[in-house]
Amino acid sequence: MKQKIGSQNVLYPTPVTIVGALVNGKVNFLNVAHIGILNASAPHLISLGMGKGHYTNIGIRENKTFSVNILSQDKMVEMDYVGIVSGSTTDKSAIFDTFFGELRTAPLIQDCPLSMECRLTDTYETRTHDVFIGEIVATYADDAVLTEGKVDLEKVKPLLFDRSSMMYWSLGHAEGRCWSEGKKYKKT
Amino acid sequence: MKQKIGSQNVLYPTPVTIVGALVNGKVNFLNVAHIGILNASAPHLISLGMGKGHYTNIGIRENKTFSVNILSQDKMVEMDYVGIVSGSTTDKSAIFDTFFGELRTAPLIQDCPLSMECRLTDTYETRTHDVFIGEIVATYADDAVLTEGKVDLEKVKPLLFDRSSMMYWSLGHAEGRCWSEGKKYKKT
Repeated sequence: MKQKIGSQNVLYPTPVTIVGALVNGKVNFLNVAHIGILNASAPHLISLGMGKGHYTNIGIRENKTFSVNILSQDKMVEMDYVGIVSGSTTDKSAIFDTFFGELRTAPLIQDCPLSMECRLTDTYETRTHDVFIGEIVATYADDAVLTEGKVDLEKVKPLLFDRSSMMYWSLGHAEGRCWSEGKKYKKT
Repeated sequence: MKQKIGSQNVLYPTPVTIVGALVNGKVNFLNVAHIGILNASAPHLISLGMGKGHYTNIGIRENKTFSVNILSQDKMVEMDYVGIVSGSTTDKSAIFDTFFGELRTAPLIQDCPLSMECRLTDTYETRTHDVFIGEIVATYADDAVLTEGKVDLEKVKPLLFDRSSMMYWSLGHAEGRCWSEGKKYKKT
């Protein structure tokens, strides 16, 4: 039996990211899981759906740069923490060791398996959210999460977000090969 | 040690969805994992980043409606299959049992734990992709995946996509509570 459950968004889980920006000259971080992938070709475009009230938005608008960092699930406490305190009242600059890359104004997290430096290319505004669209300029990966030069999610152990349960989830296992499993399909 | 790995998109995994549309009057389905969440308030807006060459895009542009269906991982073969054959040459209308909801032109999958009916509100165009932005008009959930009226991902068993490995992944387990785990953070 099916239930109609309103106009609920059930497009989960999504990866939890820590977004870095300079706000009023200071390094700041925010937990963002309302992400998007716009295309699958260069320049690679991704989006962040961020409530307009967030302090981080000010820095992204000002510098037109931001970073998107993927941390491992053992950093769940830090990841959640930067989402529950605001940079307007709490200094979050020392929670992570940071470095700067090509863009100079997008703080990246050092102790972090994967980071992307992004240049803001557009902002899609909704009534309540700034959807920041960024071009990925450079990607950094820890040696420890690469297998034969490729990012290995089994090693990354990303944290995932689900709004229905309001819980963070771990990733399971590789189950099958894309553009291959479908060949087993037989019409009945 | 960090490696710079180009401008690679590592914003994965994302949920594998089966997008339904009527194309030239016939039910069609496509596998789409390049999704996005734009906001966290009504009207709920989600996006689909779909290569311009896809047959399904024609129907979404024509009817201005589509469905986004979340299937369980035991349907991996069917999910992959609709992504490797095109509706321009293969009739995909009978792969799933379908029904129509409020919008009348967005085919929904019957044997599927979660489905969203969407009205196209905008199209964000990139050189290679149509990013369809839809408002979620109605959401359908199977009783079997609800726990106390809430969507329970442990029961949904969604399939996740990762572009680095080109593999489908399963979901792991609930690891901690959002907006709560961070309270354990102590500055060092």
